[in-house]
Order: sequence, then structure tokens, then C-alpha cells
Amino acid sequence: MLISFEGTEGCGKSTLIRNLLKKLGKAKIKAIATREPGGSPVAEKIREIILNNEMDPLTELFLYESARAEHFEKIIAPALKTKKIVLCDRFIDSTIAYQGFARGLKLPMIETLNKLATHHRAPDLTFFLDLPVEEGLARATDPNKFEKAGIEFQKKVRKGFLYSIKKNKKRWKVISVKNKTPDEVTEEVFQIIVKKL
Amino acid sequence: MLISFEGTEGCGKSTLIRNLLKKLGKAKIKAIATREPGGSPVAEKIREIILNNEMDPLTELFLYESARAEHFEKIIAPALKTKKIVLCDRFIDSTIAYQGFARGLKLPMIETLNKLATHHRAPDLTFFLDLPVEEGLARATDPNKFEKAGIEFQKKVRKGFLYSIKKNKKRWKVISVKNKTPDEVTEEVFQIIVKKL
Repeated sequence: MLISFEGTEGCGKSTLIRNLLKKLGKAKIKAIATREPGGSPVAEKIREIILNNEMDPLTELFLYESARAEHFEKIIAPALKTKKIVLCDRFIDSTIAYQGFARGLKLPMIETLNKLATHHRAPDLTFFLDLPVEEGLARATDPNKFEKAGIEFQKKVRKGFLYSIKKNKKRWKVISVKNKTPDEVTEEVFQIIVKKL
Repeated sequence: MLISFEGTEGCGKSTLIRNLLKKLGKAKIKAIATREPGGSPVAEKIREIILNNEMDPLTELFLYESARAEHFEKIIAPALKTKKIVLCDRFIDSTIAYQGFARGLKLPMIETLNKLATHHRAPDLTFFLDLPVEEGLARATDPNKFEKAGIEFQKKVRKGFLYSIKKNKKRWKVISVKNKTPDEVTEEVFQIIVKKL
């Protein structure tokens, strides 16, 4: 089962995934945690370029897809084959939200490249950690280029996620994280995963 | 005018382009020399990843297209706008030859991505420096990963170039470089460019 976690900056995906991995481990459910862009040695090098350089939006899109193709082939597909649960911090929907809605690239082109990079494998379940963009940005201690892009940019990203959620309600679970502790969020998400299993 | 230079490894493209740039300068014809992958700061970083890592063919394809999109937007398009001649060491046809014929990726997919990255701008003129692959490989002093891939790989690359040449004879000029000095090759190519101008 491939589970992706999406949200605007600072919504708490990384903490949640770390906690979920422990909880799944305790329940003897085999799982791995990974992230995009990155997750494999070559893809992590691509991540460095993406996050530390300003570039043409189309360049950025192709870099995301190159990291995704590598990550999918080397990490995700082998883990799924051995029946492990894959918890992925960002996936195809982030590209729709960031490069499509926030950068303004055309959605059909992005959807085509997303499918190419993943051999048409969509996640089985996607969690959207819902937090007002202002609160998320306020949490950033060492802001990356997307956090530095500001509130208007993040609002476009959020709009992109809401678009994808509306398009495919069955795959998405929206988790409101405002005023919840990390443990409460972990428990809520863990129960949904167990039920799905 | 956008002029690309293609060929198998060791065919003498770089030397030719260096010589041509000087000769064009002496003739007061404005030109720049550039290369793929690379040619701009971000694209050169992508080049480093491509040439120094083994990776999935699809990852490699997306990396080439990301470097191309950046190079095209930041270097080629601005130069063409100011009426400079652009001499480019490798371009879209190398992707057909290397990632298509040698790596085995599907040609329609590569053609689509090539068009995306270049906003459908094909070269006005493409020179194929024709040299037996064995001779080219023998010239490599510090072989890169494609030179290390060996003769059978280079033969597939060559087949890929011959395919592109056959498809679009008007755009291509085949220059046999066997048994010619660099100066002879430069003079031959220079005359063709001047005639085209």
C-alpha cells in the first residue's frame, strides 16, 4: 500500500510520518518512510539542486519528475513488491499544487509527466494535513525556497491541493491538524490506515 | 540561427565549435558557443549528476530535459533574440540517440519531452560529425560514463543519429571527419554556415 502525505509548508507531515513508522513497527506492520523530492541517493542529489537554486518553472518540473522516476524505481516499487507499506512525504499531488497552481504550469502536462514517472501508479491513500498557511509558515525555523515564497504562494499551493481532493475524494483523507497535538494526529491517521488494511 | 553539433563520442565536436567561434568572430559574425547538458549554472549542476551517477533511464531522460529547459530559457532563447548564432554541442537529437536508441526508451515520449523543453524550437542546421565509433572511443583520455559504456552502446547511438538524419534530411549536414585535420573540418563547416547565412 502506497500512502502519501500532502499539505502546505509546516503542516507537520515529517513528524507524523516518523511517529506513524514507530507505531506501525510496534504493531508488527512492515513499513518504510520516504520522501520527495529525494528518497534515493541520486534523487537526494536532485533535491539539493531543486531546493537551493532559483530556476525556470519547467526546469523545476522536470527535476521533480526525474527525482520521482528514480525514487519510484529504486525505492517505492521494490518496497511495494515485498508488501511493505510505503509512507511518502509528498508525491504526485505536490507537483500539481506547487508547479501547477503556484508556478502556473499547465495541469495536463504535469499529469502526463506524473504518470510517466510513476508508471501510472497512484497512491492508495493520501492524507491532506490541513492547517492555515499562516500557521504553517510561522513554524519554519530555517525556511526553504518554497517557505520563503510567502503566504500568497502558499495559498495557491493550498488551492491546488483542494483541486486534487475534489477530483478524487475516495483517495484523500483530510485531517484538520489545527489545535491538535502530534500524538492526536498520529492516532487519528493510524486508525484510518489500520481500517484500510 | 540555432546550429547543433551531434556525433558519437570523440568525434571532435568541442574542438570544431571552439575553432568555429574564433572564425566567426574574425568574420564579425556574432555567435556564442554552448553545450548540453549544461550551458547555464543550474544546467551545469544537472550535468554533474548525469555524468557522475548511474541511474534509471527515465531519470536520465528527465534530467536531460530539465537541463535543456533551463539552458534554452536562460541562454539559447535570449541569444537568438539578439540575432546571435548559437553553436550548441549536442541538442535534442542526442536524446533520441542516447536515451532512445541506446537506452531503449520510447521515441514518441522523448520527442514530446524534447518539444516541451525547447518550446518546439528545432535547430536550423545540424552537423553530424561522422567518425567510426571505434576511432572516437580510442580518442577518450578520461572516459565519461557514455564512453565507458563501450562500442556496442556507441553503435546504437550512431544508429539513432542515422534515424534522425533520415527523418529530416534538410536540417542535417553529414560531415565525414575521418582522415581530416581539425582545420579542414572547420573550414568545411564554416563554408556551409556562411552559405546558409
